[in-house]
Amino acid sequence: MKVKLLQIALITFVTGGLCFVQAQQSTIKEDFKPSTVNQPGQEYPMVNSQGYARFKIIAPAADSVRVSLGLGGRGGTKLSKAADGSWMGTTDGPMDEGFHYYNVNIDGGKFNDPGTLNFYGSVRWESGIEIPAHDQDFYALKNVPHGQVQQVLFPSPSTGTSRRAFVYTPPGYEKGKDKYPVLYLQHGWGEDETAWSNQGHANLIMDNLIADGKIKPFLIVMTYGMTNEVKFGKIREFSIVPFQTVLVDELIPYIDANFRTLATKDKRAMAGLSMGGMETKQITLNKPEVFSYYGLLSGGLYTPADIKDKSKVKHIFLSCGSKERPEGVQKAGEELKAAGINVTTYISEGTAHEFQTWRRSLYQMAPLLFK
Amino acid sequence: MKVKLLQIALITFVTGGLCFVQAQQSTIKEDFKPSTVNQPGQEYPMVNSQGYARFKIIAPAADSVRVSLGLGGRGGTKLSKAADGSWMGTTDGPMDEGFHYYNVNIDGGKFNDPGTLNFYGSVRWESGIEIPAHDQDFYALKNVPHGQVQQVLFPSPSTGTSRRAFVYTPPGYEKGKDKYPVLYLQHGWGEDETAWSNQGHANLIMDNLIADGKIKPFLIVMTYGMTNEVKFGKIREFSIVPFQTVLVDELIPYIDANFRTLATKDKRAMAGLSMGGMETKQITLNKPEVFSYYGLLSGGLYTPADIKDKSKVKHIFLSCGSKERPEGVQKAGEELKAAGINVTTYISEGTAHEFQTWRRSLYQMAPLLFK
Repeated sequence: MKVKLLQIALITFVTGGLCFVQAQQSTIKEDFKPSTVNQPGQEYPMVNSQGYARFKIIAPAADSVRVSLGLGGRGGTKLSKAADGSWMGTTDGPMDEGFHYYNVNIDGGKFNDPGTLNFYGSVRWESGIEIPAHDQDFYALKNVPHGQVQQVLFPSPSTGTSRRAFVYTPPGYEKGKDKYPVLYLQHGWGEDETAWSNQGHANLIMDNLIADGKIKPFLIVMTYGMTNEVKFGKIREFSIVPFQTVLVDELIPYIDANFRTLATKDKRAMAGLSMGGMETKQITLNKPEVFSYYGLLSGGLYTPADIKDKSKVKHIFLSCGSKERPEGVQKAGEELKAAGINVTTYISEGTAHEFQTWRRSLYQMAPLLFK
Repeated sequence: MKVKLLQIALITFVTGGLCFVQAQQSTIKEDFKPSTVNQPGQEYPMVNSQGYARFKIIAPAADSVRVSLGLGGRGGTKLSKAADGSWMGTTDGPMDEGFHYYNVNIDGGKFNDPGTLNFYGSVRWESGIEIPAHDQDFYALKNVPHGQVQQVLFPSPSTGTSRRAFVYTPPGYEKGKDKYPVLYLQHGWGEDETAWSNQGHANLIMDNLIADGKIKPFLIVMTYGMTNEVKFGKIREFSIVPFQTVLVDELIPYIDANFRTLATKDKRAMAGLSMGGMETKQITLNKPEVFSYYGLLSGGLYTPADIKDKSKVKHIFLSCGSKERPEGVQKAGEELKAAGINVTTYISEGTAHEFQTWRRSLYQMAPLLFK
C-alpha cells in the first residue's frame, strides 16, 4: 500500500518544473526593474511587467554563460557578450508569476548569479528571482503588526545532535499569555527548514491573514524533513521512520515544553509541499493520534481507504498548481467528500510545481485550520 | 572632535585583512577535511590540521580560476586544471584560525564557491571557510540548553519601512518570567544583521557561557547598522543620525515593549565590531542616558576626554586582534584606567581584522556586562 502511495506522490512532484505562460507576446516592454530578491544595491537580474527576466553577468574572459531559466528547462537562456564585456540575455518568454530558483553556467560550471540572494533548493543554495504576481499583496511586507520567526535548536537523541527548527509566533505572542495551536509545515525535496520563510514568506502570509482578521493566530514550526538523505531519483527508497521519530518524539515535545501551545491532537496540524507532502501523508496516517488537520501541497493525495477512522480527521487540504495535475486533486477531493471526510481542494491558477503555488496554498489552507 | 575620532576608527579597521601566520611550514599534511561551513554534502573546500585550505571548482571550459584567499590578499590562490577538468589549488601557507570570507574569480567574474554556505560581507553574500581553531570549543554547538535567535520586524517611521532585527533569547526565556538586560551588538561595514549569528556564532557563545555558569543570561539584539549606505572609501562621510534614530528611538522601545527586558540604562549595553564600533562610540557618547556598558571590537577607541561624565559609564571594553594595532588598544586602556574609568582591554592572539577576533572578544566581554 505504501509503495503505491509513494508512486502517486512521485508522479505529482516530477510533472512540475519551470513553465512559461502559454501566450507569447510579440514585443518586450522595456520597463524592467530589479527583481525584489536581488542582493542589496544590485540592479540585475531585472524583470518587466510582462514577466520577462533579464540577466547580466560579469565574466569578461568566459566563453559561454547560460542561465538555467527559460524554455521550460530545455537549456535555459544563453547570454551574449555585450560591448562592456559583460554577458546579457533575456528569457524568450514571460515566466510564471512568483518565485523561481535558477543558476548560472559559466564555461561548464554551475554558479550562482552574484546579483541575487540565495535560497536553498535542489540540495544547494541557489539563485532566486521573483516575478511580480497579480496577487502578491497577500505575501507582501506591509505596515501591520509582525510576528517573529525564531530559530530553535532542539535536542535530538535519535540523530545524536541538536537540530534546527524555525518557529513562527504571531504578533503579541511575546508579551501575551494565550496558548496557540501549531502547524508543522514541511518543505520539499532539495530544500530545508529555511524554505517556508525565505521562499514562502510564511511569516508574512500569517501576519497579513491575522491583520485582516481572516484567521485566529497559530504557531508554525518548520524543521528539516531529512528529505535530502536520498537522491531525487531514489525517493522511492526513502524511509519515513528517522524523520517521524525526530518530529513526533523529539520536536513536538520540545515545542510543547518551550512554547505556549495547545498541546492536544485537535490543535495540531501537519502539512507539506511536494516530498514534504509525502512525509505529511505517511506521518499523519502512521500517527492519527497526533494530528487532526492534514495538508498536502503538490505532494500526493489521500484516498478514502487511507483514512481508517474518519472521526480522527478534522479537515484535509489538498492543492496543486493548474500546471501540475489538478484533475488528480479534484478527483481525490470528490472521493473523500463522498466518503464523508471534511476536505477542501485548491488549484493555483497559472502556476506549476513552484513556490507561488505553495504560498497561495498556505493562504487558502490557514483559515481552515483549528476551527 | 567627531572627525578625529572617525580617523582613529578608520585606521583601526583598514589595517586588518586576511593574514597568514608567519611561520611557513615545509610540508603540507595530507589530512584535509571538508570545512565545517560547507554546504550539506560538499567535500570542498577542505582544510588541513595546519590551516592550509584546498579548493576545487568545476568549470571545465574556463581559462582562469582564482580564489581570493591566500598570500595576504595579493592575488589569492591560482587554481590549476586537474585531469578531470576541475580546477584545484591549495593556499601557499596556513591561514589564521577561524572564519574567512572569500570569493572565486572565474574568467574575470566574481562568483561564490558552490561548495560553501554564503555569508554577508563586503556588501555581498560571500563564500566562507572555517579554519579549525585551538579554542573553537567556546563557540561549538554542544549538548547544552540552547537559546533562540528570533527574527523580528519592527516598525521604523523614520525610514518608512519595517526593519529586521535578530534577538537572542537565552535558554528558558520562553517559559520563564524573568526580565533580562540587553546588549545591542553591531556588525561591521559590508555586513548586516545576520553576521553576528552566522559568522560570529553569538548565540552558541552565549549558550556555552550560560551553561558553564560564567555569565548571567541577557538578550542580544542585532540589527542592520545602515553601514553600507556609504562606500568603503567614503566612511568618513557617514552620518550616524539615521541609524541612531532607528536604534534609540525605534528599535529599543520596540524591544522593551515586546520582550521581557530590564528597560533601564544600567541594564543596557552597546558594542560593535569595526565600523559597528565606530557607531557604538558615537551613539554611546551622543546618548549617555541610554547605555551603561560600551564595547569597541576592532572598532576605534575612547579617550578620557570623550567621557564627559564618568559616573554614567559602568564599563568599557576595548579589543582587537594581535595582527591589528594592539598597542593602540592597550594605550587607550591605560589612559582610561588612569582617568578612573572602569575599562577592560583584550588582544586576540594570532588573529587579524576578522571574525575569530570578534568571537573571542564577545566571549571575553560578556562576563563583564551588567554586573
